[in-house]
Amino acid sequence: MQATGISAAELADRRGRLLEHARDVGLTGVVLFDQAYIQYHTGFSFLSNERPIAFAQSVAGETAVFVPEFEVERTREEAAFDRIESYPEYPGVEHPMLVWARVLDDLGLRGRIGVDSDGYPGILGYQGPPLSEVTGAAVEPLSDFIEGRMRRKSPAEIELIRRSARWCEHAHRLLQRYSVPGATEAEASLHAGYEATLAMLEALGPDYAGQLGSQDGATAGYRGQIGRRSAWAHAVAHNITFREGDMLVTETAAPVWGYNAELERGMVVGTPTDEQRQLHEHVVSAQEVAFDAFRPGVTCADVDRAVTDYFAANDLLPLWRQHTGHAIGLRNHEAPFLDVGDHTPVEPGMVFTIEPGVYREGLGGFRHSDTIAVTEEGIEILTDYPRDLESLTIPA
Amino acid sequence: MQATGISAAELADRRGRLLEHARDVGLTGVVLFDQAYIQYHTGFSFLSNERPIAFAQSVAGETAVFVPEFEVERTREEAAFDRIESYPEYPGVEHPMLVWARVLDDLGLRGRIGVDSDGYPGILGYQGPPLSEVTGAAVEPLSDFIEGRMRRKSPAEIELIRRSARWCEHAHRLLQRYSVPGATEAEASLHAGYEATLAMLEALGPDYAGQLGSQDGATAGYRGQIGRRSAWAHAVAHNITFREGDMLVTETAAPVWGYNAELERGMVVGTPTDEQRQLHEHVVSAQEVAFDAFRPGVTCADVDRAVTDYFAANDLLPLWRQHTGHAIGLRNHEAPFLDVGDHTPVEPGMVFTIEPGVYREGLGGFRHSDTIAVTEEGIEILTDYPRDLESLTIPA
Repeated sequence: MQATGISAAELADRRGRLLEHARDVGLTGVVLFDQAYIQYHTGFSFLSNERPIAFAQSVAGETAVFVPEFEVERTREEAAFDRIESYPEYPGVEHPMLVWARVLDDLGLRGRIGVDSDGYPGILGYQGPPLSEVTGAAVEPLSDFIEGRMRRKSPAEIELIRRSARWCEHAHRLLQRYSVPGATEAEASLHAGYEATLAMLEALGPDYAGQLGSQDGATAGYRGQIGRRSAWAHAVAHNITFREGDMLVTETAAPVWGYNAELERGMVVGTPTDEQRQLHEHVVSAQEVAFDAFRPGVTCADVDRAVTDYFAANDLLPLWRQHTGHAIGLRNHEAPFLDVGDHTPVEPGMVFTIEPGVYREGLGGFRHSDTIAVTEEGIEILTDYPRDLESLTIPA
Repeated sequence: MQATGISAAELADRRGRLLEHARDVGLTGVVLFDQAYIQYHTGFSFLSNERPIAFAQSVAGETAVFVPEFEVERTREEAAFDRIESYPEYPGVEHPMLVWARVLDDLGLRGRIGVDSDGYPGILGYQGPPLSEVTGAAVEPLSDFIEGRMRRKSPAEIELIRRSARWCEHAHRLLQRYSVPGATEAEASLHAGYEATLAMLEALGPDYAGQLGSQDGATAGYRGQIGRRSAWAHAVAHNITFREGDMLVTETAAPVWGYNAELERGMVVGTPTDEQRQLHEHVVSAQEVAFDAFRPGVTCADVDRAVTDYFAANDLLPLWRQHTGHAIGLRNHEAPFLDVGDHTPVEPGMVFTIEPGVYREGLGGFRHSDTIAVTEEGIEILTDYPRDLESLTIPA
């Protein structure tokens, strides 16, 4: 397989475990349509659109990828499948799923086939028949098994997330430098992204790919979380000018071979008020509560409960808006969630964001997000950026 | 509703037609989960993630939106629904779909409900029960009706796509300026995106929003389609340096209130060879063939067939890789497709990309993409950028 940051041996091991599961439950093979699942098992990355792409492996071990013809040459160059099968175009004279059904039959996939979904999902106008219909096979869901594997990251995966964290930090430093009163959200964010990406590409060299498709590199910005809009945890970018007194909530991204860390900070423009200072301190304390809650044997719900207990004890529940965090890896949000309703046991190798926040309508929001990896003993904090208000105050 | 570029009256008309359809087929109301469908009918935009967001309307006309609590304040500010209903968090102590089922019952949605999907799709780790299960109602698919409506754009929608085209052109001019031998893909693309976005925000003013979430503005780049990789119609971005002799294929994007034009050009670095010149001329001619094929009464397949006939007549089928184009609007790819297998009749108001290309392994690809709107008489070309090779040659 191509250079992906994840070794060919580790990719083979992932496929081996999936096949072992397939054999255990009596399947003739597996078929994957989901982009992240295919990348996880093969290292092959692509742009999802209305033209279906799929991966299959028989229990005998033979691998096949299914791509539109125009992807064949790139696939041959960038990946290593036993078979590269293709169709001329979607929708085409013959529907691609009929071509794929013949390939699967030829691979020996019939009777009972494991799938992540019963056919290609309706991305960007795609329409097509279920896989069970075109193959005549019974399809058994694989997603729970795959998600169970993906949520425990290997040392190699954690190392890529750690490298992503370094570039999130660099992009954030630049964002903070360019976020000055009178500048706009777009100016600060574009300037930071420009410089951080060039530095990242320079450092990582010509073999690096973020594997996000259109654009590699690092980004940092606000997504509209400026001033009173920072109280809206998922605001949408607007063309906003920084002003004294604004509370700010940042975001960053810097995928390294597809893997993501998350780093976010609450900041303030100009001398903080007492209220801003207090809310900021509570957010840092709530993060500490979450860090400390990662003891062997806890569940995701336990961690979130510890944080909501802290907020309750400090009369902050009216300012609470979101659970403590989410898992992160090849996808920038993934299950499990640090949420009172998610009773998944916490296990070593899981990677989470820790981002308890408080949001006061009319004033704004305060949220720091750091990325942590669960270890045998507790946690390792993968992101490294100041959390104290002095370091996060923008002079006005 | 908020200022979206689409008037409140037009949004109300869209919802009215959906309700009319619902009444015709005997439904008690409609439920939408898809982000583009919700934006199309209400103007409300949001970041899709594992926290479900949904829209409902009863046949009596009452509208409700369903959001996580932290979105309530922003929703109140940026949209105008009769009811804003919310849940604390996902997954939460009580699953959000159970809360939503009570809201729907209260709205009078029971018996038979129209839906775009039977529950919220599995975005970023979301898991939940089907809507039919939590409501006990029979669900009837609405997607075909909605897609049928969305594929015929209104004059207001075409005007937004026209405005998007202006900024794609500006971003492309900058990309071309900064793509010089020795520079990298990232340098040229980041420089162009930086300047084009600031110009766009300056021109469109503080009320503008691209409604794409994290970042507004215009982008231009190559997505790795540089040198021999330009033969790979969907290459992935790499850290590539421009060199004399390279063939290049560009891409641009500049959503205006969510609406997209597409502008792409094949270019060459340094004096073109005879082969490069010939392939370039064929691509321009194939576009002309497609433009001319839009006569009243044709189907999408007819347009694509005219182009493949042209390639066949010129012995170029071995270099053919992709159909002629796709519809475009709120989504940057959508159905129908200008493809020999898509027999949808072409109708006034449809907007398509016209992008026949030729790709020679080892040399590279040539593709121009322009966006056109179908009129009563023929087409209007919405993108305006030189197509002649002299204008698209980068000095080396």
